[in-house]
Amino acid sequence: MRYFEDFAEGDVTEVGPVTVTEEQMIAFAEQFDPQPFHVDPEAAKDSPYGGLIASGWHTAALYMSMFVRGVLLDAASLGSPGIEELRWTAPVRPGDTLRGRSRILEARPSEKNPNRGTVYSENEVVNQDGVVVMRFRSYGHFARRPA
Amino acid sequence: MRYFEDFAEGDVTEVGPVTVTEEQMIAFAEQFDPQPFHVDPEAAKDSPYGGLIASGWHTAALYMSMFVRGVLLDAASLGSPGIEELRWTAPVRPGDTLRGRSRILEARPSEKNPNRGTVYSENEVVNQDGVVVMRFRSYGHFARRPA
Repeated sequence: MRYFEDFAEGDVTEVGPVTVTEEQMIAFAEQFDPQPFHVDPEAAKDSPYGGLIASGWHTAALYMSMFVRGVLLDAASLGSPGIEELRWTAPVRPGDTLRGRSRILEARPSEKNPNRGTVYSENEVVNQDGVVVMRFRSYGHFARRPA
Repeated sequence: MRYFEDFAEGDVTEVGPVTVTEEQMIAFAEQFDPQPFHVDPEAAKDSPYGGLIASGWHTAALYMSMFVRGVLLDAASLGSPGIEELRWTAPVRPGDTLRGRSRILEARPSEKNPNRGTVYSENEVVNQDGVVVMRFRSYGHFARRPA
């Protein structure tokens, strides 16, 4: 089990991969983001994207699915207060294989709570061609190692 | 159909509501964010949250589901380049009913592309008790009205 003390500035973690199918993209988007270029392959051809692309929130959720399984399930994760400067930098298309990369910018003990600390990271999602499709910075709260 | 010209600084739009069940919260989290406090009601009792809470990415997706159906499906939406300063400010629990509120901070024609513009908004998700559970700012690209 990794505690706050086990996360250090500069640490890089790679997670994934995950491959996303057209069926999964459409299923997510029909529920949460039913814009034509996310749910209708024919209509998407006439969009600026020239074909179906994943909802950006789906890409974010796919990053999370990799990061939770690769890091958080073996850590004393206490949740996240938020995100800074999220950018969807390139389309995610059916069949793309995504990987995640996270680099710790800062690990700061809580001033209010001696039992936890906050890890601030910059994160990227990269496709099979090495293209960054999403980047963002995130905060994560972790329990400190019990004495 | 709403085009870029139909969005103005100061405009406020309310969307929703949507009610989220424990079953939906667990289904989303099992796929994308299987941390114990998102998927296991018993384990969640021992977490700092005292019970099951929605994945923050689920809350974001639920906001999107309301905003797309309330605004974007009737607009010339061209997608979003990103998000600023997203904060999960309070837990979302089973049975919560969420509404969204969006206020336009700026509507700016593109300098590169005469056929589109960018709308920058601040958005809140509020529960049935009036508690803000998430806030963020977002960019959206829209086509300009054809001449």
